[in-house]
Amino acid sequence: MTNKLTAALLLTISTLCIPAQTPTQPQSLTGRWLISSDYFGTPVFFPLKLDQQGSKLTGVFRGEKLEGTFSGNALHFIGKDSDSNTNEVTGTIQNGVLDATEVDVQFTDKSHPLTLHITGSLAPQMKHSSPQRHEFTPTVFYRALSALNKPVLTISPGDTIHTTTVDAAGTDFQGIKRSLGGNPQTGPFYITGAMPGDTLVVHIVRLKLNRDYAISDDNIVERGLNSALAVQAKDLGKDIRWHLDTAAGTATPDPASAHLAHYTVPLKPMLGCISTAPGISQAAPNTGDSGYYGGNMDFNEVTEGSTVYLQVSNPGALLYFGDAHAAQGDGELNGNALETSMDVELTVDVIPNKQVGGRRIETPTAIIAMGLQGSLDEAFKEATDNMARWLTEDYKLSPSEVAQVIGTAAEYHVSEVADRNAGMVLKISKDRLRTLTSIPDPPAPKTP
Amino acid sequence: MTNKLTAALLLTISTLCIPAQTPTQPQSLTGRWLISSDYFGTPVFFPLKLDQQGSKLTGVFRGEKLEGTFSGNALHFIGKDSDSNTNEVTGTIQNGVLDATEVDVQFTDKSHPLTLHITGSLAPQMKHSSPQRHEFTPTVFYRALSALNKPVLTISPGDTIHTTTVDAAGTDFQGIKRSLGGNPQTGPFYITGAMPGDTLVVHIVRLKLNRDYAISDDNIVERGLNSALAVQAKDLGKDIRWHLDTAAGTATPDPASAHLAHYTVPLKPMLGCISTAPGISQAAPNTGDSGYYGGNMDFNEVTEGSTVYLQVSNPGALLYFGDAHAAQGDGELNGNALETSMDVELTVDVIPNKQVGGRRIETPTAIIAMGLQGSLDEAFKEATDNMARWLTEDYKLSPSEVAQVIGTAAEYHVSEVADRNAGMVLKISKDRLRTLTSIPDPPAPKTP
Amino acid sequence: MTNKLTAALLLTISTLCIPAQTPTQPQSLTGRWLISSDYFGTPVFFPLKLDQQGSKLTGVFRGEKLEGTFSGNALHFIGKDSDSNTNEVTGTIQNGVLDATEVDVQFTDKSHPLTLHITGSLAPQMKHSSPQRHEFTPTVFYRALSALNKPVLTISPGDTIHTTTVDAAGTDFQGIKRSLGGNPQTGPFYITGAMPGDTLVVHIVRLKLNRDYAISDDNIVERGLNSALAVQAKDLGKDIRWHLDTAAGTATPDPASAHLAHYTVPLKPMLGCISTAPGISQAAPNTGDSGYYGGNMDFNEVTEGSTVYLQVSNPGALLYFGDAHAAQGDGELNGNALETSMDVELTVDVIPNKQVGGRRIETPTAIIAMGLQGSLDEAFKEATDNMARWLTEDYKLSPSEVAQVIGTAAEYHVSEVADRNAGMVLKISKDRLRTLTSIPDPPAPKTP
Amino acid sequence: MTNKLTAALLLTISTLCIPAQTPTQPQSLTGRWLISSDYFGTPVFFPLKLDQQGSKLTGVFRGEKLEGTFSGNALHFIGKDSDSNTNEVTGTIQNGVLDATEVDVQFTDKSHPLTLHITGSLAPQMKHSSPQRHEFTPTVFYRALSALNKPVLTISPGDTIHTTTVDAAGTDFQGIKRSLGGNPQTGPFYITGAMPGDTLVVHIVRLKLNRDYAISDDNIVERGLNSALAVQAKDLGKDIRWHLDTAAGTATPDPASAHLAHYTVPLKPMLGCISTAPGISQAAPNTGDSGYYGGNMDFNEVTEGSTVYLQVSNPGALLYFGDAHAAQGDGELNGNALETSMDVELTVDVIPNKQVGGRRIETPTAIIAMGLQGSLDEAFKEATDNMARWLTEDYKLSPSEVAQVIGTAAEYHVSEVADRNAGMVLKISKDRLRTLTSIPDPPAPKTP
Repeated sequence: MTNKLTAALLLTISTLCIPAQTPTQPQSLTGRWLISSDYFGTPVFFPLKLDQQGSKLTGVFRGEKLEGTFSGNALHFIGKDSDSNTNEVTGTIQNGVLDATEVDVQFTDKSHPLTLHITGSLAPQMKHSSPQRHEFTPTVFYRALSALNKPVLTISPGDTIHTTTVDAAGTDFQGIKRSLGGNPQTGPFYITGAMPGDTLVVHIVRLKLNRDYAISDDNIVERGLNSALAVQAKDLGKDIRWHLDTAAGTATPDPASAHLAHYTVPLKPMLGCISTAPGISQAAPNTGDSGYYGGNMDFNEVTEGSTVYLQVSNPGALLYFGDAHAAQGDGELNGNALETSMDVELTVDVIPNKQVGGRRIETPTAIIAMGLQGSLDEAFKEATDNMARWLTEDYKLSPSEVAQVIGTAAEYHVSEVADRNAGMVLKISKDRLRTLTSIPDPPAPKTP
Repeated sequence: MTNKLTAALLLTISTLCIPAQTPTQPQSLTGRWLISSDYFGTPVFFPLKLDQQGSKLTGVFRGEKLEGTFSGNALHFIGKDSDSNTNEVTGTIQNGVLDATEVDVQFTDKSHPLTLHITGSLAPQMKHSSPQRHEFTPTVFYRALSALNKPVLTISPGDTIHTTTVDAAGTDFQGIKRSLGGNPQTGPFYITGAMPGDTLVVHIVRLKLNRDYAISDDNIVERGLNSALAVQAKDLGKDIRWHLDTAAGTATPDPASAHLAHYTVPLKPMLGCISTAPGISQAAPNTGDSGYYGGNMDFNEVTEGSTVYLQVSNPGALLYFGDAHAAQGDGELNGNALETSMDVELTVDVIPNKQVGGRRIETPTAIIAMGLQGSLDEAFKEATDNMARWLTEDYKLSPSEVAQVIGTAAEYHVSEVADRNAGMVLKISKDRLRTLTSIPDPPAPKTP
Repeated sequence: MTNKLTAALLLTISTLCIPAQTPTQPQSLTGRWLISSDYFGTPVFFPLKLDQQGSKLTGVFRGEKLEGTFSGNALHFIGKDSDSNTNEVTGTIQNGVLDATEVDVQFTDKSHPLTLHITGSLAPQMKHSSPQRHEFTPTVFYRALSALNKPVLTISPGDTIHTTTVDAAGTDFQGIKRSLGGNPQTGPFYITGAMPGDTLVVHIVRLKLNRDYAISDDNIVERGLNSALAVQAKDLGKDIRWHLDTAAGTATPDPASAHLAHYTVPLKPMLGCISTAPGISQAAPNTGDSGYYGGNMDFNEVTEGSTVYLQVSNPGALLYFGDAHAAQGDGELNGNALETSMDVELTVDVIPNKQVGGRRIETPTAIIAMGLQGSLDEAFKEATDNMARWLTEDYKLSPSEVAQVIGTAAEYHVSEVADRNAGMVLKISKDRLRTLTSIPDPPAPKTP
Repeated sequence: MTNKLTAALLLTISTLCIPAQTPTQPQSLTGRWLISSDYFGTPVFFPLKLDQQGSKLTGVFRGEKLEGTFSGNALHFIGKDSDSNTNEVTGTIQNGVLDATEVDVQFTDKSHPLTLHITGSLAPQMKHSSPQRHEFTPTVFYRALSALNKPVLTISPGDTIHTTTVDAAGTDFQGIKRSLGGNPQTGPFYITGAMPGDTLVVHIVRLKLNRDYAISDDNIVERGLNSALAVQAKDLGKDIRWHLDTAAGTATPDPASAHLAHYTVPLKPMLGCISTAPGISQAAPNTGDSGYYGGNMDFNEVTEGSTVYLQVSNPGALLYFGDAHAAQGDGELNGNALETSMDVELTVDVIPNKQVGGRRIETPTAIIAMGLQGSLDEAFKEATDNMARWLTEDYKLSPSEVAQVIGTAAEYHVSEVADRNAGMVLKISKDRLRTLTSIPDPPAPKTP
């Protein structure tokens, strides 16, 4: 048993890149557990929340309410969903390590229950006490947002990372190729205590250009082309180099064509990509893609002073970032913005037990909900729904109030059209939010 | 002949609402002619440009190059297109009035040429010399943008109109119903000398609220709803009254629900509708619709200080406006903004012989190209194409330069999602445009 | 009073094109009433259902439950909606003619009630007893689907019309131009007894070609063009004439280019346009457009043997049709199909008190629900919703059953991409529907 | 040098899963070469075509025309693109093995050329002589379409595979779970001689059900829901089990709800997924996704008797398939079709040097071009473009002829709405294609 358990733990730790911890039996089983299994070769996590009252256990396992017992070291519980599927778990908890068998019965095929070996432990506590600053020099740049890539650094909530990113083509601040292109990322960073179901908070403290040029092009992406413009644009597509003048705060094409001889764009450094790793059991998306985890969002307000909220899908969150732009028009119409390398300083935090309902950004003056979908029309709907949830959850507005506030205060921008997902953001000024009335919760009923 | 001619003229004048003029034979036929016909009951205009060199005529008729002669009073010319369709015109010009027969042969059915009676005259000169200010009190409010509605006032380029609009439901500044709802319009105003193929320029000098309330609702329109939000919003749809405090410059819901007790929105008066009349031979759109003519664009930057550029499709342009909003979030997500009546002051101008390639707005700080299509995705493409044409036509940029400028300087906003067309705007700051290099045309070759 | 009443009736009859009837006082007020008013110059209809129990009246007025009284000739009732808006009606019913004043109080502006003069009468009975066949030769062709156009013929439910249509360009079976192009229509036909809220049923008995050619083109419409194809198609757009060989049942381009020398398409005559007139108070759509009323649907299964179900929005339904095609691929990708004139034979019927939830077509082998929206994505949703309603209303399926049936039996086709609305149809074979179980309503509870 | 070379080859072989071959020096370098490199940890392939004339080399390297020499064992060539970027290759070819250094200079950053070590060999000949039949029992099921997964079997063009697939949830014909769900695939199969730039041809010889049930659900996917239907469908989402009666050829829900007690659907077994592996240097897509490589297309005409054409992006093509459905309505509206396991028999072939321009399917009666994009609107455009290319390439039609044929013969269906990409297919009957005129190429000019 011990050997098997150790093997399972090692497997878990090595496969799933979870920093090792010394297990000890907890005082109470109550809390969030991190359960993993090898599901015919695919690593999986299952969320488990336990509430222990003596030998009685209640809680939630894989989204279903559970009831069971813990007596001696023996663990037993059953979860049931509304379709009458059941999960029955039988095993032990020793030295804080859960080691059990799960039998899964699906109503659509009751005759073939599935049996899995599962292991796990209580989620570690987060440490906020003494935030640290980490200087990190990247040596590897990942091109897929995988939960299986080994974390390059383990940090705690409250900590700050100071590091660099290579540009979208994999070239660093010295102009040296470090990776194949396609938005190679710095990371992943493991944030201690972050658990699936939490929210990762990333404060962008500083984005500083570290070379004097950027690469872009004169293309117009497919989403920008009706048939008339497609004919006009048919011969476009060449690379354009831009000179970055950090003293003047401007970028200029270099060399510039006739009418652009004096054309300048203000520098506004931003991160095109920022993400957690998506769920471990799915194939990792490439770093040109985006999704619920963030990714290649190419939004020009992910910049110095902004805060990004992202869903946590794996232990440690596994933060990746890269694809910095010296400046970018809304939408990234050329397919490339002013692609460059960057000095990046970020502070991370975790909101436990709160799954943020979509990618959200906060700036000093506004809150911004993002939609990323296969069309601008669907992205618009998602941005609206994302903001409606935000106003409902954090500002306690009723559906009618949500509609009145968005109807009068919305700013809808296109964030990006250059990638597989189109992005639309809904922004609401904090000037408007400040006039919302915060109503205290009614007092809890007194018990005699 | 004389009788017939007079009858035709009277028909034209009465049907087509063109203010009568005393015809006189021009010195030269060279110039823009306004040709109309009754096409089996449908009034139609045909553009004609003539260039007279002695008895020889060249020019363009209905989009086709023409060649012909004018000798005595006798007129004869033929136009041909690339599909070998021909238009042959035979008639007279007397006292400045063209009276002729057009025989139209289509290659797909050569055996049945069409014969039309056409009449016309040279376009009148525009008068810019002494701009006038017109105080106008509307008594009728149209609910279709028809070229057949009798103009309420004839003005000249350079003139200013001061008038009022009723709200989208037809209620005036005293709270009195003046029309069925659906954006009833003030107008149409006939602008002397404006011809199909020109551009109407409308400077919005002043938008002043003239009552202390607006009507809106708490709906969320279909384009804003994914399935999750649709379920949340299923019971919405009630009217909301807003108090307008012009002294404080704010609007507040009245009565307000709990969390909105102190919610305020800054007043930013705007015109939801502004348009020319679309082509006379098409059924007139209702005032909730939009198109190449403008119409119900519901864009919150059509406000004091802005200039709107619109295509002219009929003699006199026939300017309509209405549907004022005290304030509106991007998109008009509730379907109604803060609908109210308004004091409106506009100055109009005409750019002859230039068909603006889409709806365009200029503010003190930016130029803005609008797309209005059946989806946000298509509206995005049209806004991009519209701006690309603008930068090409007025700033002489090459396709590559267009792409570089839009790629780095674009601000894309949603203008509206409340109506049949979705609207998207592409805005470029004048700060960027000022850095574009204006290159003089090469000197004309000297002739020895 | 009498004079005023007569004037109102005449106004109503002449403006609204309702065939005159001799009014007589009904035995009971119970039934459907047709109420009209002149609303500041706009004609409007209001639905009214009355249920008379002695002097007590209940029913529905303008969508709101009413309560009131009828005593002597004096009529009084009040309707209220959930937003506390009220409609109060006070007047008389004499010789079957309702003549009253309606006072409309809106909660958003209680201080300015609206007062309207309304008139009306009980809806006529439908006559099914002896169906007639009408030979009709059109002399006028309308280019707007207006409720204000004078009906060309009044017929009864069950009757058959035999007539002709001109082609989309207004050319008849002899190749003679009869109208400006843009789908000029035959009609409108007034169907006795059809009322707003009913469904018009049109059985297409026969579609017979009546000339030997059709006109099309080689264009590809905007909805078919991505940027690559746009560049390939940039020089297209010329007219193509097709020879129609009714004996062989085929169409061939004439003249044909090299690879199409033997290319043939089977003839499958269809009607591109069929519609009722939309609501009278809205600007009439042009005959290139489509909507809840039908219109230019360009669906190649609106053919001999099919039945079309359309919403009735005006008294008499006001049936229009035209734009016949000798054959058409799905979508009408060229913008024009094989446009030709046609001999048309239709039988009409009315389903009273049932508003069909969208455009629906029935063929001998399938039922077909149509979506028409600004994008194919939205049209897909509407087609699905339309079919879901159909299965719910007529087949009594639960939401789960609806999902199972559509999921397993759906055929989704593109109906059209050539016009402002994109069309998508959802087709379910009658083979599948025949296996659905019809469950009788539970027996009514016995009263002792 | 030898050691290094061997190491590189071993690396290539092991990393890239290319079956080992004994290298021998070819008679001529003329032909297609397979070049690979390790690009900072990412495996990449580069296409190379050489034409040797004595010591002179011409050809194409990485899309650019090359010029160079081969003398003794020494290889040297340079490729240049229109942006003045250059690739210079210097090395040797010994025993058929190319071993060289590539120096890559980009105009946007000339000062930092990139140096790569590349290796390669001439592509193997395809063997068609004696087609074989392979019985294959899968033991591993992949959930990502990776070019790095080890091939389960190597076969030749012309060969036939007989094997099985598990259902979308990973359950086999015995009802036993074999994998985590999400369309686990059988494969990849390595097809000898298939090279990037070729087309893989898969004939589906037989699809035979091998168990008596399927699992589906009563959900309606997001793309099917407008706001009204979303509210109706809000409580849906439960699993539905279907009984498959292969004798009767029907499926029935089991248990069935009231109205579906006798509801039957004809069995029409199909493969939801079929694909090649996408390019090796990109993160592998999960098996729920689709793209240029095929994948989860969920098209109900990928069935017995159909042929699927797919792009080859890697040596050996690497064929995957799975996700069989016993039956599926157009679109797979429930998100799941009738998911089941299957007996599958396929014959494969390769068309060398022809990159098929999109996913294409051929049935006994039609050719079908598929679009897969983020919206149905964009998928419609891609399907049209795909078919236009097909008609241009294989039927030699001009753009005008393409438009005429699609305009008159198109059948557009929705293939799927259940996954990230929406699918639309354009189908043209072979009855129409048979009437196209095949024009022989003009005779080659005679040389004296």
